[in-house]
Order: sequence, then C-alpha cells, then structure tokens
Amino acid sequence: MSLRSSIDFLLYQWLNAPALNQRERFSDHSRDTFDAVLDTCERIAREKYAPFNRLVDTQEPHFDGDKVTLPQATHDAQKAYAESGMLSAAQDYDWGGMQLPYTVEAAANAFFACASVSIGSGMLTTGNANLLMAHGTEAQKNVFARHEFAGRWSGTMCLSEPQAGSSLSDVATRAVPDGADHESDPLGPRYRLKGNKMWISAGEHELTENIIHLVLAKIPGPDGKTVPGVRGISLFIVPKKLVTPEGQLTGERNDVALAGLNHKLGWRGTTNTLLNFGEGKFQPGGQAGAIGYLVGRPGEGLKCMFHMMNEARIGVGMAATMLGMAGYLASLDYARNRPQGRPMGVGGKDAAQPQIRIIEHADVKRMLLAQKSYCEGALALELFCARLVDEQHTGDAASADEARLLLEVLTPIAKSWPSEWCLEANSLAIQIHGGYGYTRDFPVEQYWRDNRLNMIHEGTHGIQAMDLLARKVLMENGRGLQLLAGRINQTIERAIQQPELAAHANALGAALQQVGSATKAAWATGVPTDALANAVPYMQAFGHTVLAWIWLDVALAVRASGSRDAAAQGRLAAARFFFHYELPKIGAWLRVVETRDQTCAELPEDAF
Amino acid sequence: MSLRSSIDFLLYQWLNAPALNQRERFSDHSRDTFDAVLDTCERIAREKYAPFNRLVDTQEPHFDGDKVTLPQATHDAQKAYAESGMLSAAQDYDWGGMQLPYTVEAAANAFFACASVSIGSGMLTTGNANLLMAHGTEAQKNVFARHEFAGRWSGTMCLSEPQAGSSLSDVATRAVPDGADHESDPLGPRYRLKGNKMWISAGEHELTENIIHLVLAKIPGPDGKTVPGVRGISLFIVPKKLVTPEGQLTGERNDVALAGLNHKLGWRGTTNTLLNFGEGKFQPGGQAGAIGYLVGRPGEGLKCMFHMMNEARIGVGMAATMLGMAGYLASLDYARNRPQGRPMGVGGKDAAQPQIRIIEHADVKRMLLAQKSYCEGALALELFCARLVDEQHTGDAASADEARLLLEVLTPIAKSWPSEWCLEANSLAIQIHGGYGYTRDFPVEQYWRDNRLNMIHEGTHGIQAMDLLARKVLMENGRGLQLLAGRINQTIERAIQQPELAAHANALGAALQQVGSATKAAWATGVPTDALANAVPYMQAFGHTVLAWIWLDVALAVRASGSRDAAAQGRLAAARFFFHYELPKIGAWLRVVETRDQTCAELPEDAF
Repeated sequence: MSLRSSIDFLLYQWLNAPALNQRERFSDHSRDTFDAVLDTCERIAREKYAPFNRLVDTQEPHFDGDKVTLPQATHDAQKAYAESGMLSAAQDYDWGGMQLPYTVEAAANAFFACASVSIGSGMLTTGNANLLMAHGTEAQKNVFARHEFAGRWSGTMCLSEPQAGSSLSDVATRAVPDGADHESDPLGPRYRLKGNKMWISAGEHELTENIIHLVLAKIPGPDGKTVPGVRGISLFIVPKKLVTPEGQLTGERNDVALAGLNHKLGWRGTTNTLLNFGEGKFQPGGQAGAIGYLVGRPGEGLKCMFHMMNEARIGVGMAATMLGMAGYLASLDYARNRPQGRPMGVGGKDAAQPQIRIIEHADVKRMLLAQKSYCEGALALELFCARLVDEQHTGDAASADEARLLLEVLTPIAKSWPSEWCLEANSLAIQIHGGYGYTRDFPVEQYWRDNRLNMIHEGTHGIQAMDLLARKVLMENGRGLQLLAGRINQTIERAIQQPELAAHANALGAALQQVGSATKAAWATGVPTDALANAVPYMQAFGHTVLAWIWLDVALAVRASGSRDAAAQGRLAAARFFFHYELPKIGAWLRVVETRDQTCAELPEDAF
Repeated sequence: MSLRSSIDFLLYQWLNAPALNQRERFSDHSRDTFDAVLDTCERIAREKYAPFNRLVDTQEPHFDGDKVTLPQATHDAQKAYAESGMLSAAQDYDWGGMQLPYTVEAAANAFFACASVSIGSGMLTTGNANLLMAHGTEAQKNVFARHEFAGRWSGTMCLSEPQAGSSLSDVATRAVPDGADHESDPLGPRYRLKGNKMWISAGEHELTENIIHLVLAKIPGPDGKTVPGVRGISLFIVPKKLVTPEGQLTGERNDVALAGLNHKLGWRGTTNTLLNFGEGKFQPGGQAGAIGYLVGRPGEGLKCMFHMMNEARIGVGMAATMLGMAGYLASLDYARNRPQGRPMGVGGKDAAQPQIRIIEHADVKRMLLAQKSYCEGALALELFCARLVDEQHTGDAASADEARLLLEVLTPIAKSWPSEWCLEANSLAIQIHGGYGYTRDFPVEQYWRDNRLNMIHEGTHGIQAMDLLARKVLMENGRGLQLLAGRINQTIERAIQQPELAAHANALGAALQQVGSATKAAWATGVPTDALANAVPYMQAFGHTVLAWIWLDVALAVRASGSRDAAAQGRLAAARFFFHYELPKIGAWLRVVETRDQTCAELPEDAF
C-alpha cells in the first residue's frame, strides 16, 4: 500500500468524488484534473517536504531578539506550496482559485502532512482567509484574504492566552476604539488592542511579507467593564505590518511583538509563539496599542472564529492521520527488510535455518494491521467529512442541511479519534523497529512526538468529548444522532446481505444500540455532572462505532469493486481486524457511561 | 499522596516487610533500619538526581573520539549513590553489604528512578556483580564483583548485536582460547573475543576507574563452526582496562572500543553504545582480540545471564512505574494550581464567577485517578515481586519453591504491564497540562519519552508475551498458573466477605475464569502458531487481571488498617477505578485469544 493508492481507492472507488463534477461549481473538473492536483502535491511533498522533516525537527526556529530564523528548507517548502496554487484551490475562479472540491483539496493536502507535518503552515493561512471570505468586508477580503491566497502574506489564529486556554471566556485582551474616526476606516472599524496571545503557530517568521493575525479580544463598555463569557468576545484583523486601504505595506510596524518562542516536544518546524499586542515596542502613529480592524459584529467573534473550526478540526484529524500513516509506511518498510528470528514450528525453532524477516512474525503482522486499520480507517473518515463539507456547500437544501448536521456530530470524532489512535499507531511503529525505533536515526520517534500535540490543540480531548455528549448528540432534539444512526443502518442493511460481511453488520448494529442506550442512560437524570463525568469514555466508544461503520462501508466498496487483489484483501482484513480486535472495546467504555459512574468525580482532592 | 507515603503503606501495611526480620539473614534489621535506608535514598534522589533530570536530557553524552564526556551532575549522582552503600546493600556483611532484604532495596531504589531514571546506572552494576556472585569463581568475585559493589568499577550487560536483538541465537561475537595456557589464568579461562555489541548502556564513560562488560559470545569448535542456537552461547568477563589477578589496573587497555553513541528519544542521561570487541584499536599483549574470562561453563552463557534477568525485568518494571509516578505527581501538582474553566451547573456555566482549579473538573479527576491506579498498582506489583525474590532466597524450601514459580509467571507482567500502562499514565499527565505539557518547560514530556523505552529493552512486549503464553503458563504442567490462581482465590475469599469489596471480588473471580478458559482455548489445537498469534492481547488481559488482584489485595489491607483518612479513601477509589474502568477491558483482548483469531497471522505480506 502507498498513501496514493489508498487515497485513489477512497476518492474514486468509495466516495465517487468525480460525481461532484455534475455540479455547476465543479463542472470544469474531471478525474483527470483531480489526478493532476494529487500528482503535483505528491511530487512537491516528496521533493520539498519529506527530505527535510528531520532537519526542521533539529534546527528549531531561532529568535535573535529581532528576527526569527527558519531553515532554508522551510522557505523553499513554503514557496513551492504557494506556487502550487493550493492556498486558493477551493476559491472561485475570480479569486484566482480553481474551484476544487474540498474533498480533493483535503486529499491533496494529506501528502504534505504525511511528508512533514510541521514544515508548512498553509492550513492556517487558508483557514484565516476563508474566515475573512465569510465574515469580512469587501475591503478586508480584497486586502487581506487576497494576499493570503496568493501566498504573499500568511495567517494565524490568536485565541488562547497564557491564563485562558480551554476557557476562552477568560480572554483578557482588550480592544478600544482608536479615535473618533475609528468607524470610518476603509479596512473596518479600527481599534487598539492590548494583551498577550499564547500558542500562536506561525506567529512570527520571515516566510512572507506580512502576517495577518485574527485575534479574539473584548471591547469594554462605557463603564470600562467587559461582558463576562464568550458573548463578550469580538474578532479583529491585526496585521504585523500596517497596510494601506489598497493593500500596500506602509512601512510601519504594528504593535505586535514576539515575547518568546515555545519549545515543544514535537511539531518543531512551525514557530510557536507568545505574542504581545500593544505593549508599546512599536508605536504605530506614535501611540501604544496594536491596530486591529473589527471583523463581523462586536460580541460575535467566537461565532466567526468557529466558522473555520470545523475545517480546522478536520485538518487536525487529517494531520494526526497522516502522522500515523507515515509511521505505518515506515514500519512496513522496516518489517519487510529486517531479518530477525525464525518461524515457529511445532518442535520449536530450528536455529540452523536462516533468519526470516520480521513481517513474517504474527505479532509484527498484528502491529502492522492495527496501524493500517487505524490510519486507513481514519483517512476514510476524514475524506468522508470533507465530502460532507462539499455537500453542505453545493448540495440541494435538504442534502446540505443533512450534511451540516452530520458534520456537527462527526467533527468531534474526526478531530479526536485519529489524535488518539494514530498516535497509538505511531507507538506500534516504534515497537516494530525495536531499539532502532527508539533512536533518532529512524523517523518513527518523531512522528510519535509530533502526533502527541493533536489531542491538545484545537480543543482538547476533554473539550471534544463535552462537545459531543453535551451538545452534538442533543442538538435539534437528537436529530443529528438519529441522522447518523440512519446512515449507519443503511450500511448495515447492505452489508448484512453479504455472507462475508454479515457478522460485521450484526456487530455494528449491536454497537449502535449500545451507544444509543448509553446516551440515554447518561442523560437519564438530566443532571450534566452525572452525564458528563465519563464524556471521554463515551467519545471513545462513539468513535470506535463510527470507525467500524466507516470500515464496513469501505468493505462494501471493496466487494462492489469486484477486485480480489492484494489491496482488496488488505482492506477487507483491516475491516475484519477492526471488528474483531477493536469494536469489542466499546463495552468497557460504555459501562461507566451507562452507570453514570462517579468514582472519579466524587473523589475529594486530598485523596489523590 | 507522595511516593514515600505510598511506599510506606505498601511495605508496612500491606506486605508487612518487617516480618522478614524474623529470618536469620535479616535479624539485625527493623523498621528503623529500613526507614533509615529509605530516608537516605529519598534525600540523595531529591538533592543529586531530581534537580538534574532535565539537564541530562539536554546535555547528552558526547564522544570526542577519545573520551565520553558526561555532565558533572552525573558524576556527582554516581558518587553519591556509590557512597550510599546501595550498590552492595543486599550483600553479606563479609562483602561490605548490609544484608538488606531485596524488597527494601527495590523500594529504596525507586526514589532514584522517580527523580531521574537515566542519570544513574547502578542497577546494571549491581546486576552484573550479582551474576558474578552466583556464577563466578572466587577470584572473579573478589576481583570484579568486589570493585563493582564498592562503586570503583561499573558493569554492563552485552547481549544484543546490530543484527541480533530479540534473536540472541544469532550472536556473531566469537571467542577463541588465548594461547596454550589459557585454561590456567587465575581470573578464569582466557579467551580472545571479536564482535560488535549494540545498545550497551553505560558501555563507555569516565564515571568509574574501570568498566566490566559481561559479554555473550560463541566458542567455535575444532571445525571452526559454532553450535547454532542459544546453546552455543558462552559468557565472558571483558574488562575495559586489564587487571592483575589481585585486581589492580595493569595500565593496559583491553581491545574494547567505542564505535559510536546511540542518540535516543529519551533516557539520554545514560550513554548507550555500540562497542567493538577485538577490532585491533588496542592490542593487549601485542595481539588482536579483546581478552575475556569465561564465566561458568561453555555453552551455558545465556543460562547464567538469565540469573540476573528476573531482577533486571523487575528493575525495568519499577523504572516504568516510577516514570509514571513522577508524571502523576507533577500533573497532580499542576491540577491543584492551574485555574481554568468553571463548575458545570444545570443552567450552564456562570462566566461571571471566578475560575476553578482544573482538579475540580471531573475529566481531570478521571485522568488523575487513572494514573494513580496504574502507577500505585504497578508499584504494589513490583514490591510484591521483590518480596517473592526475598522469599525465594530466604523462605523454607516449599515456600521458596512457590515463590520461584510465582515469579516465573509474574515476571513478564512485572516487566510489561508498567511499561505499557505507566506510559499511558505519562500521556495523561501531558494531557492534564494541556499545551504547557507539550513544552520542554514542564517535565512530563520527558517522562513520556523516557518511558517509551521500557516496552523495548530487556525483552520486547512481544517477547514477554511469548514467554508468558508459550512457556510460563505451561511450565510444570501449568503448576505456576494454578499457584497464581490459588493466591488470587485466597484474596477473593477474603474480599467477598466485605460488602464494599464483594462486587470487586466477584468481578475478579469471573476474570480469572475467563483467563483460564482463554488459556485452554488458545492451546486447544496444540499448534503454537494458533495459540501465539494473539500472545500480546493475552498478556494484556492477564496483566489487567493480575493488577485487579493486586488492587483488591491492597484494598483489603486498607480496610484492615481501619483508617478512613484521605489516603485510605484514595486507595479504595483507585481500586474501584481499576475494577470499573479497567478490568472490563479484558473481554475484548481475550476474545481473539479464545477464537485463535488468525486475521493478522494469515494476511499475506503484499496485502499490507
């Protein structure tokens, strides 16, 4: 298996991506144009990303007090990515885009994440510009988004602060109107911002001519107080360098200063920063405070920010998936070439025989098939979600609404599941390498380190679980959950008619019922603390059920293809692995949900 | 909870360690002398180890082509440890030891592993000298072991080679008799060795005056050929610097040369080396080949080496446990001090209220209690195994034999279980820290990296699982498994009479039956490939059952103590957590064992 063969199968045999081309927006496209995009991205990733993945891990960003230095390879990768047109691939032709379906964009971007997850930060720039396209004024779109799509400027998302990570309602950054004429600035209502933002990826560098920060801050009322909670949050464009209404650099720095770089366990190719806004290091117009332009309406900042959250969370899920995939492919290659040990015979091992390669040992095969079932399954899930994004944007009203609601329910899984299980895949990849896997001479330890971030950023595991159990499965009177169950049941109905898949179908049906009754039992008392004490185990079980469904649906596509080649055999085995080794795990997770187990929640602090 | 309070409870309330003092060997000891040892080790660990744990991670060993340089802190830690007398603590008074029970030695050494697992390598030196005490000649003991116990020389274990890791039968290092008089050397039959040894911890440094390598090699027969398999392996003492029969350095280097340092993901405070034996860089007596002295009889090298294996595997299990414990304590401290978010109420969160500390969130409590149940449970298991070692050495014949057999069965669990679950604990410790845990400003990411080694060295997870299912549960007609089941049933019988523990007792009884029938089902066809395809899931289920037993037994001790304080409450909750959240996981693992699932084993290579 290769990443490309997997993507090809999932896009063309399973998701039938070319059918999108019957829609007006995508009507110029064909499998040929999709393939051309995939070819280009695969090539750039192979040439400009993969060879430098270790280098960007060891040559971390360096700040000399003035500028942040990154390796030349990072500049080259950035340039090649921008030149590929991927930053604006999904945009209208008018905007220099190619009106590419998001499904294909996501698949094409997977090559970069697999080759070197941290060398590029294109996802942030695209997400930033997409947000402006949705919520910005024409001037904001033309000045900021346009330069981002072109790759001349890059973008960030500034949500967290040192004292406010998961709890965004506590952001302390303040924005005050900048002068009497602040409402009439051509770039949007102009404010002065003061505060600190933490964990800002790509927050400072010399890769692009300018950096466009999207910053959450609160606007104090006439009494100088801010509205508590997330309702008080507004969103601002804060460029690193000031620009004219026509989008030219004025030559003046905005008051955004790098306070320090974070030194992380992994993901070291991307600068990660603490930024000071308005500390007075630079004083545009001779005044303190970073100049920012309001996006959308005051108090609706988080709502605007969440516009990009679904795609960002799919992006995180895809990154986790691709780190897992990179480890799988590396350990598969190692297992095919490393001789060690001998076959097991009834009479023991014959030491006079030559050694076999470790892929011939059952336990190594188990570790490989586990990785394949986690990573190829997760890839299928992410592409399925990307396909829903396209449906939401280009389907008919009913279908778009269903896609929206399914996405709401599936997003916490798309983000959390690969973060947990493709990390486990990376650990198995290390294990297959033995002692060598524990050294920096092989790539797998880096994948494992890089991947550990994904359960943390863009909403922790715990936050995703609360989102799922407290919001998503309840919203619209449970319609999202019903919709998902309906889709799962459709797959079950088709699979149950095939002798090879009927047992899986029955197992999935039982799992779905278990999840359904656990959901009810969790909320039986109506008390959130009862229900949510075990939100993470619930999400783990929910995720495994979703993945079992995805694998069963993929298995149906394998069988429908009529192929019985090695790749088909491998996918059916990965599905079987998931049903035999993984799905049965949900029982243990759901048990504590069903009983609303308070063992942890009730334990007093001094008993730990 | 502190590590000390946990050790005190387990040693004194649970294992009744002072009862050992009724035995002649330990008759000078008392709880006071045990406490004095614990106090000393706790203090040295706090002063000489803990403050330098990050330093030894960042200042890796450096080889300039001549000498290996280590930080001064490593020299200081080594010196303090040697001066504490811990290297020879378990030895006879005649040998400068204190005749300390192994149980207390293991507990005392835990402080060092918790403070900085890689700064010290005392375990290897003690293990090396212990092996010589068991299998060496009087001269070998007096010259080599004595200097090791004194801390003047240090020891290594040289098993693996670049092409022979898990498969020791493939060692290619050769030993040939060194001259006609080789049999009459006072230090033992003298050979010349040639070969390469890989992954040798503490293989080169300037911490001690000499380094004593214990090296596995094969002696070719008259036809120049070696015996295939492990039966052909012999064991040799190969000092870095040559010594006189009286143990003085001759001033001449032996032909052991550092070929390179391994650069690892973690555990960086200990040099890890590739050593060349007999490559001719040094030529003692003007001849090529490293001089080595045979230990024990030719062909019995691996048997001798395994003498130290049980203790080494308990040592690895303890190291994994202590890394987990270090992460638990760090994340507990962080959770008690980090404000973030608000309590959950029926009407949602009130953003106007001040933030609460994260230990007040149910999901953080869940992650803390999981860590506690993994790490304190694993500590109990390791100390229980250490207590069995004492029983084996000082109990009456029947009791010693039972202890030996129980140790055989439990050793794969003592090694593998903490390696897997205390690593998971470290991941939870990162998660509790959020983004901060992913930076190198906090200690938890290093614990996680350090801990990843433990599933690999001293026999991989896969090797432990084969040892358990193919050897240990079958040996002596299954007597070891029956013995363990008997002990577990004794605990169940006591617990079932206590209302608070009866449900746990029933659950453990059911788990034990499941493991028993899965063992039978695995071997039902008598075909090793059928049984062993799922040896690792079997070991996971076996391990969880053992840990449930340990927790139930600890819970009995808590209740017997009559205490209802916070610590008692915490231990009962950790036991309950294990029974509610963890033990139910065995169903999924055993399912594939019972059905002898061949999904992985049968998959052809090109289907991956």
